[in-house]
Amino acid sequence: MRIDVLTLFPKMFEGPMGESILGKAQEKGQLEIKLSNFRDYSANKHHTVDDYPYGGGAGMLLKVQPIYDNLEAIKKASPDTKKRIVLLDPAGAPFNQKMAEDFSQEEHLVFICGHYEGYDERIRSLVTDEVSIGDYVLTGGELGAMVMIDATVRLLPEVLGNELSAKTDSHSTGLLEHPQYTRPAVFNDMEVPEVLKNGNHKLIETWQLKEALRRTWQRRPDMLEKMELTAEMEELLEEIKQE
Amino acid sequence: MRIDVLTLFPKMFEGPMGESILGKAQEKGQLEIKLSNFRDYSANKHHTVDDYPYGGGAGMLLKVQPIYDNLEAIKKASPDTKKRIVLLDPAGAPFNQKMAEDFSQEEHLVFICGHYEGYDERIRSLVTDEVSIGDYVLTGGELGAMVMIDATVRLLPEVLGNELSAKTDSHSTGLLEHPQYTRPAVFNDMEVPEVLKNGNHKLIETWQLKEALRRTWQRRPDMLEKMELTAEMEELLEEIKQE
Repeated sequence: MRIDVLTLFPKMFEGPMGESILGKAQEKGQLEIKLSNFRDYSANKHHTVDDYPYGGGAGMLLKVQPIYDNLEAIKKASPDTKKRIVLLDPAGAPFNQKMAEDFSQEEHLVFICGHYEGYDERIRSLVTDEVSIGDYVLTGGELGAMVMIDATVRLLPEVLGNELSAKTDSHSTGLLEHPQYTRPAVFNDMEVPEVLKNGNHKLIETWQLKEALRRTWQRRPDMLEKMELTAEMEELLEEIKQE
Repeated sequence: MRIDVLTLFPKMFEGPMGESILGKAQEKGQLEIKLSNFRDYSANKHHTVDDYPYGGGAGMLLKVQPIYDNLEAIKKASPDTKKRIVLLDPAGAPFNQKMAEDFSQEEHLVFICGHYEGYDERIRSLVTDEVSIGDYVLTGGELGAMVMIDATVRLLPEVLGNELSAKTDSHSTGLLEHPQYTRPAVFNDMEVPEVLKNGNHKLIETWQLKEALRRTWQRRPDMLEKMELTAEMEELLEEIKQE
């Protein structure tokens, strides 16, 4: 997979993009990430990338020209890849696990990170997707791009050591993950539930499913509403509601 | 404001935490961020921080002891601050702008970044909040902590150059932001709307409100449902639906 990131702050990516699985995926050659600073593409002799908004208002807007020319340079450098061009924007579609799965199937992702007050509207005509990582405002799109890259790259084949892990996480099964415990059996008077210590796999599986349902029902009923429940799930959920 | 971050990957924070407004807030003395690696607090001679889950299953879980002892060290170092201790977890409450505003009022925030398959359940008893930045799975909590820190710190007084900017952003007013334009007036046959060029402030304001409503109605009707609309908004929304 190839990833291009357009940003005014390429240094922000230095720590996150080298550590952990992203570093490993790049070492293994599964991933090539290229950062470009669209300030370098400004046609203006002062290399400005922003300007005042038409009609007045606070703050500055990113101009269309530097981003347009940066995208053209990427298209010229990789003429044959199918590109998905993603604008990071609080007004975009909410990013979710399904979108991460879609992104992980792509050949070439391009992320455009805004900064300052916002974008000249015409920048939206240059992209295939407008995406937001959540209902909150960030200083710029950089952290959002890192989040999407991390969520996407961990789904690439062989990036995570244990394939099973990605499939049982919260949001991958449609349920939040059940409580989990590791040693010691007692810590500050808090004990590991008996059922997890007795080695009966059928009982453990039922307990895990029930507790995953309980946590999802208590914390994120909106997620349960979107799911199709099996007969066993319906029954367990009834038990939980009675308790 | 004081922020502590517990992480196995302190290097991930190097780029993002030094650049942009976060760097400036630290230089101005408005913010002190301290990273600690909870591996340093492992009581085990191999400094292990994870172990196998009770009851079987894929992946490793973070143990409670290293995180417990790291938190105790922070409490000892800052005995007098009121602490909000936030566990980054996909099963947590969804982070949003309201939560960023709450966090920005706090004296001392502590973020715990998970990694590997998950947490020993008893770690949850050590925290005041469990929070998720969105419905997707990341390799670890580090990017989530950076996102929350960025969203929070930009709301501290005098961090953003222009106070007005934070208040008119998408998600701050309850509406997505209206389209905005900067020079040139024409780019690749795409023109700036006439109304923004004629200098009539009343007309511009109405256009901006209407277009913010249109964008929110088209993209995020869930946000409109949560809002109390003024009479003017109701009228504009009616016009939009007719168009």
